[in-house]
Amino acid sequence: RLPVNLKCFFEGQEEIGSPQLPEFISANRQLLACDLIFSADGGQWDEDQPALMIALRGLCNLQIDVRSARSDTHSGTLVGTIMNPIHALVRLINTMHTPQGRIAVDGFYDAVRPLSEIEQNQIAEIPFDEADYKAGLGVEELFGEPGFSTYERAWVRPTLEVNGIWGGFQGEGVKTVLPSSAHAKISCRLVPDQDPMKILKLLTTHIEKHTPPGVKVAVDPNPSTADPYLIPFDHWGNQAAVTVHRELFGKTPYYARMGGSIPVCGMFLKELGAYSVNFAFGLKDENVHGPDEFFRLKSFSRAQLAYGLLLEEVSKLEMGSI
Amino acid sequence: RLPVNLKCFFEGQEEIGSPQLPEFISANRQLLACDLIFSADGGQWDEDQPALMIALRGLCNLQIDVRSARSDTHSGTLVGTIMNPIHALVRLINTMHTPQGRIAVDGFYDAVRPLSEIEQNQIAEIPFDEADYKAGLGVEELFGEPGFSTYERAWVRPTLEVNGIWGGFQGEGVKTVLPSSAHAKISCRLVPDQDPMKILKLLTTHIEKHTPPGVKVAVDPNPSTADPYLIPFDHWGNQAAVTVHRELFGKTPYYARMGGSIPVCGMFLKELGAYSVNFAFGLKDENVHGPDEFFRLKSFSRAQLAYGLLLEEVSKLEMGSI
Repeated sequence: RLPVNLKCFFEGQEEIGSPQLPEFISANRQLLACDLIFSADGGQWDEDQPALMIALRGLCNLQIDVRSARSDTHSGTLVGTIMNPIHALVRLINTMHTPQGRIAVDGFYDAVRPLSEIEQNQIAEIPFDEADYKAGLGVEELFGEPGFSTYERAWVRPTLEVNGIWGGFQGEGVKTVLPSSAHAKISCRLVPDQDPMKILKLLTTHIEKHTPPGVKVAVDPNPSTADPYLIPFDHWGNQAAVTVHRELFGKTPYYARMGGSIPVCGMFLKELGAYSVNFAFGLKDENVHGPDEFFRLKSFSRAQLAYGLLLEEVSKLEMGSI
Repeated sequence: RLPVNLKCFFEGQEEIGSPQLPEFISANRQLLACDLIFSADGGQWDEDQPALMIALRGLCNLQIDVRSARSDTHSGTLVGTIMNPIHALVRLINTMHTPQGRIAVDGFYDAVRPLSEIEQNQIAEIPFDEADYKAGLGVEELFGEPGFSTYERAWVRPTLEVNGIWGGFQGEGVKTVLPSSAHAKISCRLVPDQDPMKILKLLTTHIEKHTPPGVKVAVDPNPSTADPYLIPFDHWGNQAAVTVHRELFGKTPYYARMGGSIPVCGMFLKELGAYSVNFAFGLKDENVHGPDEFFRLKSFSRAQLAYGLLLEEVSKLEMGSI
């Protein structure tokens, strides 16, 4: 007999951005009502070291379309007399960061909640091997917002990144085209308490303000956004997880965070008023989201045992309010 | 009986960049030797107004490849910790122009030969309807190097243009990829006395100097270049052409130039020591280089008459040295 009531929720759209999830949760609040969620999406630090993932970054996206002349032209005759939309796009994107790597969009950092000293220490305590990190990526140098460590840059600082850019000729050899348009896709990773819709508005204002002469710029914000997510590290659900971690691994977990987004955590918090504890057993080399993603067989038995212990542990706690 | 000796030269590779032409000319100097060339590549100002095209811009091209991590990554975890190659490329390209539209590559303008007052006046005398020009292109605003007219920007000033840019995700919707590379194709239109190989060197030096941190940049100059071309407006070949223009059109031709390149003119000058007079009858609406390029039937008979008159006219002149 289970020591607590349990509802299972299976989500099969995560790899395509869960287009129907928000509406489903919103329409089924009664059915889904609960005190706490344990999410199996996430992982452990490594096979010997547990981690509690207490925060996820949010996300918002937009596309920029820059247009100049009515059509591409392949004649040299016009070159030099009208704004090249690629030049305009490049100039516009370049206004979005300082050369040092800070985001230069007015108001972008305004809502960022500063870390407490405890939170800063939790991150600083996690070992980081820069040589390993660089070797894993194949880069010779790291780069990011000045004044923050690599984990801080990846976990608790917001970003603005161009995910794609295109315009003009991309084939082999030479084509001296003056293109009529150029495009870019931009995404922002957000942290508490940034609001994706407000950030999209700040970006749109920035783009309008910095549009170079001689072109028209259209901004297309993507309707699908994710709120940043944070569960208090000392939440009773986390306390139960820590106890199980200690029992299984013989170690206290790192209080880690994730640079990516799991939008469902924010949705559950908003719609059901329940936090999600990320209690999961994926490992870093398992190529998450890749076509060759895998999961170790032995992690299944460890996870089964862990979830059993967790339900027992939760039943012993006096549940606080969220 | 022809009043002068005549050699005909047919070139069938122009639309693919004439890859075998330089070698052929160089290997057949004896066969091709001549005092002057009349080239049928070009056109008239319009059906009623003749023009002598006395200059063509040269050309050089290169590709920039920016690389950071070993492979694309789709996880948010890294975002903010390494240089995004699109950001690096954008920053690099943005150093190549001032916001006002002047090229900011050290030494780029050094070899540009200033126009004489006569040459400036020849261009200023050609009517320019800005409203028409903008309407034809579908732009609301012109843009180019400060301090020069539109014809000057198109004909006698060098340019540096990005013909293509690409990196990351270009499809529908959103993919929050951190790409591993980004690319751009750049071409420069050159004017006397700029040397394409020297300009490629200046660009390479500029790129090396302005490479942002955290990425590797490779520069790939294209081996195919074109020298800028200029024939003195009062060259005896042009004088003969002016006489024919007056007879056929009842008007003195404009001394126009072309923003594009016809590499063979520079090759003939270099290899045979002979100038090319561009004596041609194409008109502006005939979609040169387009899949629907055409030539008016009545221009054939005008051109036949014109070339007949031209040969007579040339035979009367005492040929100067080039």
